[in-house]
Amino acid sequence: MRDKAQASGVSFRPHVKTHKTLEIARMQHGGGVGPVTVSTLAEADMLADGGFRDVTYAVPMAPAKLERAAALARRLERLNILLDSEETLRAVESFHAATGIVFDAFLKVDCGYHRAGVDPSDPDSVRLALALAGSNAVRFNGLLTHAGHSYNATTRDDVARIAAEESMSLTRFRALVAGEMGDGLVRSVGSTPTASVVERFADCDEVRPGNYVFYDAFQSTIGSCAPEDVAVSVLTTVVGWYPERGHAIIDAGALALSKDRGPELVEPECGYGFVCDTSLKPVAARLVSISQEHGKLETHAHLPVGTKLRIVPNHSCLTAALFDTYHVIDGGDVIDEWKPVRGW
Amino acid sequence: MRDKAQASGVSFRPHVKTHKTLEIARMQHGGGVGPVTVSTLAEADMLADGGFRDVTYAVPMAPAKLERAAALARRLERLNILLDSEETLRAVESFHAATGIVFDAFLKVDCGYHRAGVDPSDPDSVRLALALAGSNAVRFNGLLTHAGHSYNATTRDDVARIAAEESMSLTRFRALVAGEMGDGLVRSVGSTPTASVVERFADCDEVRPGNYVFYDAFQSTIGSCAPEDVAVSVLTTVVGWYPERGHAIIDAGALALSKDRGPELVEPECGYGFVCDTSLKPVAARLVSISQEHGKLETHAHLPVGTKLRIVPNHSCLTAALFDTYHVIDGGDVIDEWKPVRGW
Repeated sequence: MRDKAQASGVSFRPHVKTHKTLEIARMQHGGGVGPVTVSTLAEADMLADGGFRDVTYAVPMAPAKLERAAALARRLERLNILLDSEETLRAVESFHAATGIVFDAFLKVDCGYHRAGVDPSDPDSVRLALALAGSNAVRFNGLLTHAGHSYNATTRDDVARIAAEESMSLTRFRALVAGEMGDGLVRSVGSTPTASVVERFADCDEVRPGNYVFYDAFQSTIGSCAPEDVAVSVLTTVVGWYPERGHAIIDAGALALSKDRGPELVEPECGYGFVCDTSLKPVAARLVSISQEHGKLETHAHLPVGTKLRIVPNHSCLTAALFDTYHVIDGGDVIDEWKPVRGW
Repeated sequence: MRDKAQASGVSFRPHVKTHKTLEIARMQHGGGVGPVTVSTLAEADMLADGGFRDVTYAVPMAPAKLERAAALARRLERLNILLDSEETLRAVESFHAATGIVFDAFLKVDCGYHRAGVDPSDPDSVRLALALAGSNAVRFNGLLTHAGHSYNATTRDDVARIAAEESMSLTRFRALVAGEMGDGLVRSVGSTPTASVVERFADCDEVRPGNYVFYDAFQSTIGSCAPEDVAVSVLTTVVGWYPERGHAIIDAGALALSKDRGPELVEPECGYGFVCDTSLKPVAARLVSISQEHGKLETHAHLPVGTKLRIVPNHSCLTAALFDTYHVIDGGDVIDEWKPVRGW
């Protein structure tokens, strides 16, 4: 992903929310530090402790978190915060009036996911961009969008179409504020499906994929990667085998895997994840339901009690966040343990 | 729940998996210690540290966990383990031959949930019960079942019918092994829906509800409790408000709430939880989707950025396990902090 960004001539600001570790953040930058994206201030704290200097906090800013963000900004060269409303800008301006802090800021733009972000076709959005440009309380660095709706795509062509929209939405919106100050605004895009299917990043200045560090069963189902590309799994043990009923029980449930079924359309295929043996070879079994500490497999395979399995999770971000430790495997041996940061 | 068990003349062995704290385990026993049920050996360790002496580990035993269970059993007066297969019994017998350890054991019986447990109508199940009774490696204490399928019920009448089946399945099965040693076997039942709807526990010797300590949006939807009975919620902040689109974004996502949508039939009603104000009064908003750190509300309510809300979770067991601390509230004040145990 880093090579593709470099070859495309765009900045690489990978997301760390999927793994939440210093070790993998450094791997994302070829062993060093570089610009990163976070989903919690706890991740930003960890990165600041580890020598990272340039962080984008890619969740719309809550006014009550400004004080903590300011403390972080003082430890970093840059902490970009995200705004998409006049109300939040007013809160940032009040905070600036009281403290003198000037935040680096991005405007969140909705490119079709319809979660957060301003509507790029709404004149009010242009007015907000101009207000950001004119405010003493922020350095208005750019426009940020996230094509989360690419997760609902069923084919690589659909994802490619969404990837094009993602970039174009920022280019078009930037043109609306051009003349005033538009050309200086960084266009920041990024979702793992869109970043995975394009050959080259175009029509943008910065990319922020995150899930690609592990991928998962879901990403392989929509074509972001091949099943064998997935780099994380949960080791589990068969604790019940009922061949006459065609099922088995494993000791990995919702607290080990998360209960993310993925979009409806993907559900029938992979259940809650891919069931594999300890060498990650597929086992003829479907993980059809999970409760707190039990997973239920539909299977006619030979799976006596005590059999070890590895589950390639449906959604690696949510699964990884449930554990206190990664066991790092090379050639079947545990060669290291890494600790993800928790909380917010 | 404890009063109902006492009035019914049955033993009370509440589950601690929903809260995972010493403080609430003590509250379940009126301030003292008593028999409890756990879903992880980590919960059992915490309880042993806190003076609890009688614990049932209510997940089918994995042979590889016998050594840890033996260490726990030495610290307790009783650690009941759960078996439902000859394979596991053989593993326990090998372990006994090597170490001399005799485990307290229950046979898991399937009363219709079809997750774990032996089929009570299968003659092989009687043979396994007799093998347990005849084994030197275990003290065969009783039969245990869990009517998890009560969570799929839509009415209190359905739950009541499942509650009756839950108890009767053990009574019938015990009769099949009677004469040999049947009457001495404890019949242990328990799911929060079934334990909540019955007026009196009948046809059983021990009950093991757990979720009732908090209840949740889902339990109130199926009639286990009233919405105002739910004792846990997640405090969150509105970080985006888009009245023109009829939605708002909160900073509680899948890592703060879990992604348990509950059984399909309940989904349309409560989404991922009930949306309330800070006094727990309902807000006209539905939590329709969640991603890692964002929750999306469908709403026409006035919810400016910065508004604090409380989400009554869909499934309190999974939500509570995501946090390192409970903030204990009395009359709006935080009066204490409790730490749940994590991991396995």
